[in-house]
Amino acid sequence: MVVKVIGPPNASSCRKVLVCLMEKEVEFEIIPIDLFKGEQKSPEFLKLQPFGVVPVIQDGDYTLYESRAIMRYYSEKYKSQGTDLLGKTLEEKGLVEQWLETEGQNYHPPIFNLHLQFHHRLGLPIDDKIVKESEEKLEKVLDIYEERLSKSKYLAGEFFSLADLSHIPLTHYLVTDIGKAYMIRNRKHVSVWWDDITSRASWKKVLQL
Amino acid sequence: MVVKVIGPPNASSCRKVLVCLMEKEVEFEIIPIDLFKGEQKSPEFLKLQPFGVVPVIQDGDYTLYESRAIMRYYSEKYKSQGTDLLGKTLEEKGLVEQWLETEGQNYHPPIFNLHLQFHHRLGLPIDDKIVKESEEKLEKVLDIYEERLSKSKYLAGEFFSLADLSHIPLTHYLVTDIGKAYMIRNRKHVSVWWDDITSRASWKKVLQL
Repeated sequence: MVVKVIGPPNASSCRKVLVCLMEKEVEFEIIPIDLFKGEQKSPEFLKLQPFGVVPVIQDGDYTLYESRAIMRYYSEKYKSQGTDLLGKTLEEKGLVEQWLETEGQNYHPPIFNLHLQFHHRLGLPIDDKIVKESEEKLEKVLDIYEERLSKSKYLAGEFFSLADLSHIPLTHYLVTDIGKAYMIRNRKHVSVWWDDITSRASWKKVLQL
Repeated sequence: MVVKVIGPPNASSCRKVLVCLMEKEVEFEIIPIDLFKGEQKSPEFLKLQPFGVVPVIQDGDYTLYESRAIMRYYSEKYKSQGTDLLGKTLEEKGLVEQWLETEGQNYHPPIFNLHLQFHHRLGLPIDDKIVKESEEKLEKVLDIYEERLSKSKYLAGEFFSLADLSHIPLTHYLVTDIGKAYMIRNRKHVSVWWDDITSRASWKKVLQL
């Protein structure tokens, strides 16, 4: 059964899911939709995802949304296939979840707000207050990451996991579109970690889609 | 081994963890700290939780933070003890995760923003724009919940799960301190669900702490 991933393959939330499926060696098919045409608000899409955001997956009769939920589902369903993304013990898994939540609650919001400000296709004026506040929040979060990554190679320990993976697509916007690579490069351990996790074949393939 | 829960027992993020531990019949001890004295920013606390927020748990040598990560850890560690909060199949668990993410990403932010505005002990002036925006966001989310709960008894299906549990403490603020019970009561199925999940012995005990 080929998994259908509904959403544009260059949206960060979709990219998370696609990298995960590649790491887990799960076959998928992309059903692209056009966010700028508002196709995510069409009645047909809203039946699958009532909040009108991407991605959604369809796996036979099973429909699931929320990128982190989808990643957890496939990481567990194919636990022993491809890269183990959840850790070997319950305690390792707990730490994966701790950093996956940290990404969702602390890291994602300021970068997402910056992303909206610097998203040229939206064509809106830049709100300097939001930019400043988001940068300050992100600096503090990255300082904590720097400390953490000075003690372990990856966020949850010595193994690459969903916690690291979930940071890749939006950080990619930060260092490219938003033009703030220095926030990563100014921090020695974050910088090494960033080079490591973005050198994975799965991410390189997703960037080509 | 008694689990130490570090944080004030009346903070919503701590209450989530406490309800979960009660449902799982796990013994715990509360180590209260005073947020108004800023004890969550003390060097000692920051060693356990670098972001300076509650709760943190200590279970022997194991330390974990982020309330949803802690709840997942204990729900899995004691899968067959107390209430099963994760669902029986991988597909059910996927839906629990979908709604737990929905709570974290869509439901929690507007209520948390309202909570900050109406938190009298903070003594700050109320920002009407934030109140209006948060209410509008929450109304839309609750409309989607109403639709969902017209089709299944609980968010992830016909079983009470972490997805429902994680909504209780902050919704409690909404209907009490914030004084917006009508947002729940105006929606037939959300209202029935709210009465159901707050009638659990675990929640009643946590309110007494």
